[in-house]
Amino acid sequence: MNNHLEAGYTRWALLLEFDGTGFVGWQRQENNPSIQGCLEEAGAAFFGGQSVMSATSGRTDAGVHASAMVVQLDVPDMRAVSAHQLRDGLNFHLKPHLIGVRMARPAPTDWHARFSAIGRRYRYTILNRAARPILDAHHVWHVKHPLNVDAMQEASRFLIGRHDFSSFRAASCQASGPIRTLDEMTISRSGDHVVLEVQARSFLHHQVRNFAGSLALVGRGKWSATHLRDVLDARDRSQAGPTAPPEGLCLIRVDYPEKLFESA
Amino acid sequence: MNNHLEAGYTRWALLLEFDGTGFVGWQRQENNPSIQGCLEEAGAAFFGGQSVMSATSGRTDAGVHASAMVVQLDVPDMRAVSAHQLRDGLNFHLKPHLIGVRMARPAPTDWHARFSAIGRRYRYTILNRAARPILDAHHVWHVKHPLNVDAMQEASRFLIGRHDFSSFRAASCQASGPIRTLDEMTISRSGDHVVLEVQARSFLHHQVRNFAGSLALVGRGKWSATHLRDVLDARDRSQAGPTAPPEGLCLIRVDYPEKLFESA
Repeated sequence: MNNHLEAGYTRWALLLEFDGTGFVGWQRQENNPSIQGCLEEAGAAFFGGQSVMSATSGRTDAGVHASAMVVQLDVPDMRAVSAHQLRDGLNFHLKPHLIGVRMARPAPTDWHARFSAIGRRYRYTILNRAARPILDAHHVWHVKHPLNVDAMQEASRFLIGRHDFSSFRAASCQASGPIRTLDEMTISRSGDHVVLEVQARSFLHHQVRNFAGSLALVGRGKWSATHLRDVLDARDRSQAGPTAPPEGLCLIRVDYPEKLFESA
Repeated sequence: MNNHLEAGYTRWALLLEFDGTGFVGWQRQENNPSIQGCLEEAGAAFFGGQSVMSATSGRTDAGVHASAMVVQLDVPDMRAVSAHQLRDGLNFHLKPHLIGVRMARPAPTDWHARFSAIGRRYRYTILNRAARPILDAHHVWHVKHPLNVDAMQEASRFLIGRHDFSSFRAASCQASGPIRTLDEMTISRSGDHVVLEVQARSFLHHQVRNFAGSLALVGRGKWSATHLRDVLDARDRSQAGPTAPPEGLCLIRVDYPEKLFESA
């Protein structure tokens, strides 16, 4: 993942939607289905077997979804294409995978999907009822015990702002440090669904899923709202709750200084 | 489907959610997977092999979904169960099918899921963009051409009220007549989704899907809004648009004189 554009290649920005079920996540792996692998194979098929190179605004884990991931795709100049041709051609070759290019546009000069991004927004959805998920199977975390959303909202306020988020950081996190600024967190109930939305410039590995896992303990009444503040202050992953499962998580927006896509 | 409760049986009301993909619809068929067949098999398994009998508020076609279908289930008195036990026991035996009992309660006296119902509400969802459905695959009708929702709303007003809906009635419809009263129709856009919601005491076979198919022609500009009024007035199925596909349709509410379930 670097910003070097090879000679004879043109960089495109893509708005990508995918269902992460059954994938090992964004990043290409030998012998395992990845979003990146499928996208680059579709690109190579569209460009007559020539390599295309991709990078993402942020990697996603196995089972995590995206409605609006932004990726860059460096494609060979050998074939001139319009934005619609590239979108439709990639989508043709992406079948039958549940990966789709919603929009494509030429990348701005000196633009990189990851390093140019100034904001990410994720949604974490909990299905809060006795019966297991049906219409939203594989797209929600199923929590049977009733959740008190007011308590979760109260606790979430302690997480807003600039903090050392070591308590919510995966051991595998490759970021240089644990300090992040959480710009926004909203928690709301709509029928049986409890929906968390978070916005930040960037997130630590598993940060959103670790938020969800701890906030669910508050919602179940196992923790007080103020206990979450103590957990944050402890800067100790072992003090926090479990990591919520990946299927509830969806990347829903990536922001850049220049707005890239009309509807994203 | 009759209202007779056999001696030694107790009637329950169930709030059912299912993903209609891969099913032949509600009604039991020999050798083909149906919602009714799966539900009755789960009931028989839960009640030690004794038969249970079900009837629905309204049959659904192959591929049509429900978030809140109401069904009656007549179960043998041999085993006393609570509402939670019945819900959880049925859900256990319904696995791995995408059918779930959201709630169960003893049926009111002289209550029948179909004949006691005084209102049905359906949602029809269109994904209106170039790229095929990904996160909502099998749950939307994919329409690539941009739809003008204002024009669709204007046309929909002609359908509200009591009419002869022969133009929107399937040849296979078994209702005694084509007159129905459409109480409400709303059409709204949310991003790439165009959502129709309709409410009536009852509907003709394919009525909602035929509405959607014709309204999409208005949305695409192939028909004027007033042409839809002419189609309605013609009372002739051949004058109307095609039947929209089943996967966009979802039964979202059934009303009874007495409210049966908290969240339905």
